[in-house]
Amino acid sequence: MQGLHLTADLGGCDAAYAPMHDAQALRALCRAGVEAAGLRAVGDLFHGFAGGGVTGVVLLAESHLAVHTWPELGAVTLDVYVCNRGADNGARAERLMAALEAAFGAPRATRQRLARELPALPPAAS
Amino acid sequence: MQGLHLTADLGGCDAAYAPMHDAQALRALCRAGVEAAGLRAVGDLFHGFAGGGVTGVVLLAESHLAVHTWPELGAVTLDVYVCNRGADNGARAERLMAALEAAFGAPRATRQRLARELPALPPAAS
Repeated sequence: MQGLHLTADLGGCDAAYAPMHDAQALRALCRAGVEAAGLRAVGDLFHGFAGGGVTGVVLLAESHLAVHTWPELGAVTLDVYVCNRGADNGARAERLMAALEAAFGAPRATRQRLARELPALPPAAS
Repeated sequence: MQGLHLTADLGGCDAAYAPMHDAQALRALCRAGVEAAGLRAVGDLFHGFAGGGVTGVVLLAESHLAVHTWPELGAVTLDVYVCNRGADNGARAERLMAALEAAFGAPRATRQRLARELPALPPAAS
């Protein structure tokens, strides 16, 4: 078993875009992106900070999507982590990340890609 | 602004350990670890799968903790992501990760460390 973890740290985002500062708008964007990508949500939680930022997660059957916004900085961080149990979900993860990046329309992004590896199981006890 | 993202993918965990298969036990472990590390929870969500695994997140003022378990594989993945706005939270992230790794007692772990960087803000419009 292995997984793929994509991150994107965005700068120059428009603070007036509703998902930057409105937890329900960010939730709607994330849920729509998850569904369009063919991933399966099992729950979500979004929290709006007094300062205007929003933080939230969609728990997936395949692992998770996490988003944090700082409208006062024009900044957003995105995490899409999928495990490949039973199917290779890498293309779905890429599709979700691309859709969210496009939605925020950031002129600048720092992207990273992590291969997640579960160490091998121990040998059976003798 | 920058942040630190720690991951640990654990193998050989004891499937009988309650947080491996019990969402409430995993939640209690995570909330206690967050508090002991000096991080600030703003909400949490945990989901138990029919197959026995648990997936969950604690949303932090500093970003998030995410945990996924596969008791049938003896596997756990951990993510601790903290942003360093106003304070360097790196030591708190390390403390939380160490506490969770110790709790699961895994004989094998794959650890990764990501520097998260938000691209610089655009220059002010002229």
